[in-house]
Amino acid sequence: MAKALYLVQPKITKIMEYKVDKPKNNEVLVKMLSASVCETDWKIFEGEVKVRYPRVMGHEGVGLVIEKGEEVRDLNEGDKVIIDPNVYDNTCPLCREGKFNLCIRGGLLGREYDGLLREYIVVPEYRAYKIPDSISIEVAPLIQPLSTVVHAHKLISIKPNYNVLILGLGVMGLMHVQLSKLQGANVIGVSRSDNKLKIARELGADLVIKPEEFNEVKIKELTNNELFDVIIDTTADPDLIRNSINVLRPGGTLLLFGISTNNLNLPMYDLYYKEVKIVTSRSSLPGDFLDAIRLVSNNKVKLERLVSKRISFWEIGDFQELRKGVEFRPIIFF
Amino acid sequence: MAKALYLVQPKITKIMEYKVDKPKNNEVLVKMLSASVCETDWKIFEGEVKVRYPRVMGHEGVGLVIEKGEEVRDLNEGDKVIIDPNVYDNTCPLCREGKFNLCIRGGLLGREYDGLLREYIVVPEYRAYKIPDSISIEVAPLIQPLSTVVHAHKLISIKPNYNVLILGLGVMGLMHVQLSKLQGANVIGVSRSDNKLKIARELGADLVIKPEEFNEVKIKELTNNELFDVIIDTTADPDLIRNSINVLRPGGTLLLFGISTNNLNLPMYDLYYKEVKIVTSRSSLPGDFLDAIRLVSNNKVKLERLVSKRISFWEIGDFQELRKGVEFRPIIFF
Amino acid sequence: MAKALYLVQPKITKIMEYKVDKPKNNEVLVKMLSASVCETDWKIFEGEVKVRYPRVMGHEGVGLVIEKGEEVRDLNEGDKVIIDPNVYDNTCPLCREGKFNLCIRGGLLGREYDGLLREYIVVPEYRAYKIPDSISIEVAPLIQPLSTVVHAHKLISIKPNYNVLILGLGVMGLMHVQLSKLQGANVIGVSRSDNKLKIARELGADLVIKPEEFNEVKIKELTNNELFDVIIDTTADPDLIRNSINVLRPGGTLLLFGISTNNLNLPMYDLYYKEVKIVTSRSSLPGDFLDAIRLVSNNKVKLERLVSKRISFWEIGDFQELRKGVEFRPIIFF
Amino acid sequence: MAKALYLVQPKITKIMEYKVDKPKNNEVLVKMLSASVCETDWKIFEGEVKVRYPRVMGHEGVGLVIEKGEEVRDLNEGDKVIIDPNVYDNTCPLCREGKFNLCIRGGLLGREYDGLLREYIVVPEYRAYKIPDSISIEVAPLIQPLSTVVHAHKLISIKPNYNVLILGLGVMGLMHVQLSKLQGANVIGVSRSDNKLKIARELGADLVIKPEEFNEVKIKELTNNELFDVIIDTTADPDLIRNSINVLRPGGTLLLFGISTNNLNLPMYDLYYKEVKIVTSRSSLPGDFLDAIRLVSNNKVKLERLVSKRISFWEIGDFQELRKGVEFRPIIFF
Repeated sequence: MAKALYLVQPKITKIMEYKVDKPKNNEVLVKMLSASVCETDWKIFEGEVKVRYPRVMGHEGVGLVIEKGEEVRDLNEGDKVIIDPNVYDNTCPLCREGKFNLCIRGGLLGREYDGLLREYIVVPEYRAYKIPDSISIEVAPLIQPLSTVVHAHKLISIKPNYNVLILGLGVMGLMHVQLSKLQGANVIGVSRSDNKLKIARELGADLVIKPEEFNEVKIKELTNNELFDVIIDTTADPDLIRNSINVLRPGGTLLLFGISTNNLNLPMYDLYYKEVKIVTSRSSLPGDFLDAIRLVSNNKVKLERLVSKRISFWEIGDFQELRKGVEFRPIIFF
Repeated sequence: MAKALYLVQPKITKIMEYKVDKPKNNEVLVKMLSASVCETDWKIFEGEVKVRYPRVMGHEGVGLVIEKGEEVRDLNEGDKVIIDPNVYDNTCPLCREGKFNLCIRGGLLGREYDGLLREYIVVPEYRAYKIPDSISIEVAPLIQPLSTVVHAHKLISIKPNYNVLILGLGVMGLMHVQLSKLQGANVIGVSRSDNKLKIARELGADLVIKPEEFNEVKIKELTNNELFDVIIDTTADPDLIRNSINVLRPGGTLLLFGISTNNLNLPMYDLYYKEVKIVTSRSSLPGDFLDAIRLVSNNKVKLERLVSKRISFWEIGDFQELRKGVEFRPIIFF
Repeated sequence: MAKALYLVQPKITKIMEYKVDKPKNNEVLVKMLSASVCETDWKIFEGEVKVRYPRVMGHEGVGLVIEKGEEVRDLNEGDKVIIDPNVYDNTCPLCREGKFNLCIRGGLLGREYDGLLREYIVVPEYRAYKIPDSISIEVAPLIQPLSTVVHAHKLISIKPNYNVLILGLGVMGLMHVQLSKLQGANVIGVSRSDNKLKIARELGADLVIKPEEFNEVKIKELTNNELFDVIIDTTADPDLIRNSINVLRPGGTLLLFGISTNNLNLPMYDLYYKEVKIVTSRSSLPGDFLDAIRLVSNNKVKLERLVSKRISFWEIGDFQELRKGVEFRPIIFF
Repeated sequence: MAKALYLVQPKITKIMEYKVDKPKNNEVLVKMLSASVCETDWKIFEGEVKVRYPRVMGHEGVGLVIEKGEEVRDLNEGDKVIIDPNVYDNTCPLCREGKFNLCIRGGLLGREYDGLLREYIVVPEYRAYKIPDSISIEVAPLIQPLSTVVHAHKLISIKPNYNVLILGLGVMGLMHVQLSKLQGANVIGVSRSDNKLKIARELGADLVIKPEEFNEVKIKELTNNELFDVIIDTTADPDLIRNSINVLRPGGTLLLFGISTNNLNLPMYDLYYKEVKIVTSRSSLPGDFLDAIRLVSNNKVKLERLVSKRISFWEIGDFQELRKGVEFRPIIFF
């Protein structure tokens, strides 16, 4: 028996025991090392996103392979792995088209399936990606959110010299800043927080502004009259998104990366007149994890600034406390 | 001096005289043969879309080259041409990227520039496309709207066996039906009109339904449980569009082809969960005209059923009358 | 024990016994119903493509699920399935990018792994695709080669009205003819065989010619002076391919679909001047099988004309005899 | 009357007089400021690429607008411009599809049309791109070759973390190094010249090697066993290109950027087995010039190291002398 953090009903978590299975066939048994908690987890915690209770929380985490099934080929005991929280069946039509992230029977650990805030987990080898020792477990869980950013960038196109606007400079926004810069873009970041604006600058943003500075005239000045080829929203704030259409270049792309149960109200004539593309992105694919791992191990994307609290799994206590005063990700160590 | 139909203020048209210029340099003088009138023209007429008055109306029309400037290379007197109503400057950044349809200084004949409901017009050769004699002037003006459908299909991707839903079966919807079928899709058309449903079937739709039959359960039955890879809206009806998201396949594409000044209200969580692409399309490019001409001359797209009234330019009288009892396009002969 | 057809050394086959395994976990046991034999099989038989001997031959085949492992979800006893002959490991970097057809440890049944000319085979569920009863076992094995044609067409782009040239009108060529037509293309087929030219016409080719008629002047006439947007070679004949560059439209695509150990000699200046794309395609992906199955069951691609001999597995005798007088695929029934 | 450098027959140049036209309509009269000379010019000079003699040489050059036609909109007297050497007619089918670089009647200044090594030239406004004063005329002519590199990169896809191999580190190779780095790639450069290897490192290459070090085992070591996602050849050396196929990753892309009248011999089985894409690229489009100008003015691409000789147009004398001891581009000032 081992221990896991369960959400027993909205806003109530409890550490409870569960049985650890033996890894069979192509499975590995992973001892968790560290995990992080994101906005989706908070929405699940709050009950805004419904799950079946009790549910083990968490979908961002790394661990150590300590045992493996007889068909496992590439992984070995002692390997450090990031776990892919997407469950998929490999046989539904969407999986067969390679869209594992959209699997009909699929889901996310910590939402449709029990998650990673536990001592041990058994996963199939194809959902555990080896990470090099050089990546510290203090930041490694953030490879999962990074993989979702990588995924989104494969659905849009950023060319050198594109003007890219990033709305919101939390963990996801700051990853988008870095990935956009890495593709040669000119990046403007928007946030209400002076600290986040400062960090965005450190991580490469060419310019940072507050939402109230966000108007067409000002933007035209900033972008040399060219508006934005790509706008990436991480806030899910309907008003901010709607306003951003005004500074989207004709022919441009709007990536809706924030997740929300809100409605989005869009002006049809403007969408037509600008001939735009609006894209959403869900989760990530195995190849996106490989890319995310390479980006971090090559030091092309920096994760250190995106962690703002470190705590032991055994000392979490009131889960609510975890987010108090936390600007970025809290990291939980096992 | 020649005559043109001017919109002098919302809902008031008048035939007035204007001076016909000589074609210079790369220009041709075209004597109009026939023209058609579309939804955008009605919106301009009604004042829903504002223009500078007085404005010569119309942007769908064909004519005969009767004189040419000294730099004209390919066109000759006697050639039948469809006129590209998009005005563009060739030198703004968007033109230089090949997006002439989004030219910063650009616009549409009949909206930002004087249109085609007149006896003669001077246009640069690069905006007049020769059409073969085999295409009758009774349908030829519809090559322009067809070019906009061709344009939109280049912004999305339809593969053989895709399930495609077409909302609205007017002229644009029926062109989308044909172009989707031509790419190997299974096409379901939606309209309130029995007659339009019947014509859609004749033009290749695999199945036609009324909006009230339009629900997820029914659609799953119809599409063998697979929902729609692509949904094309030509109605600009916000409710219908919003509902259609329910039957969009994860990973699918929604093409907003209808033009409206309405707001569109979309559920953000569903957009995220389905990982969708929403695309708008504006006008068309020169290459789209070439394609549209080939499609009609090869008989791959049929335009005959999309015309429902024929009238002489000289007998139009009350412009309002033109649309009375007109299901599809009225054609005006000069 | 069951029986299989082994290649024991180049040009020598022998029916020998082998042990049939029980299906475990996600595996199904399939009783073979029918199979077909292709050019790659002949190259393996001749020793032109080397394998480890003895090797069970064959990679195109359908069968009946007669037993299943406890983790199998979608398939049931009695289901008719086409088997995916591509073996892949799901964990190498190429698999993780979704390129299972290029798996580092992967290979083809009948080439790197024992093949389908046997009574029973055990395969994982994710490599067995259910086919509807409406598809006869007399043609069903051809779904595999069709899936490779579907795969190739996803690597290139065929738009309505494209001029497409198909070199070689064997089974693969005739599938390319049908798939190109299905996407709205104008198709010209090239073959030396009068019978194949005739069948190509029946299956939709707009025009068929012999290689000796194949010259630029003639082609310009046939294509209304426009040359070919796409050329698809299925012959692997280096001279024919090289000559075809002359009739490729600037900006066009050459798909090399034939497989050969020959060298291809290409004129660098012409390639530069025409700004071309040359694409090869290997095998197929799971999603391509789904598409191929749909195309056949919807009657969008016809396979009946592509079979020219039917024989019982038990009466094969001299394997060499199988290809005597066989224009298209021989089908073997178990 | 003004003066131009004419190639009067292979290997013989002569400065001769020509008449300067007045700019009409949409034309501007440009006084040349500086120009550079490239490999294609040398091939024309040598007679390897044939032209009609006498021919004014040169296609890379910048100048000052000193007079303009009445229809010119954006340019003014005193503007510094880079001239697009591609002549196109705007009305052929390829132009209408936006492929101006492949215009049927088109050609290159200095090859099919008289070039830029002259005091004054008249060009249409749409082929003269304003450059900011911050770009020195000592490097500005190189914006044209840079635009062709930008063009080529739009025909392929480089994602962050791709391994990219650049064969040849002359002017074009060093531009490819910079543009690949700008898109987040890991870049290995190959050259025989120690100096070029050194400069490649300075301009961002992660690793540089000599051709003799170029073998599969070594490369696997260098790329962490991953081979190259993209190989860009600028040498047009058939042996080097053929060998490079061995280190191309399955699913990879080979960009043939070098221009040559040689034949290229490729192994068909390897091409099939690796499922590759081979792409050629010709010249550039107007949008590519805008991008090239932005890249230089933003200091994202550095041109200073790509110039190795400066000379006055009036002192050229024996044209052959221009290339003596010139590793990169000679720049000619007027």
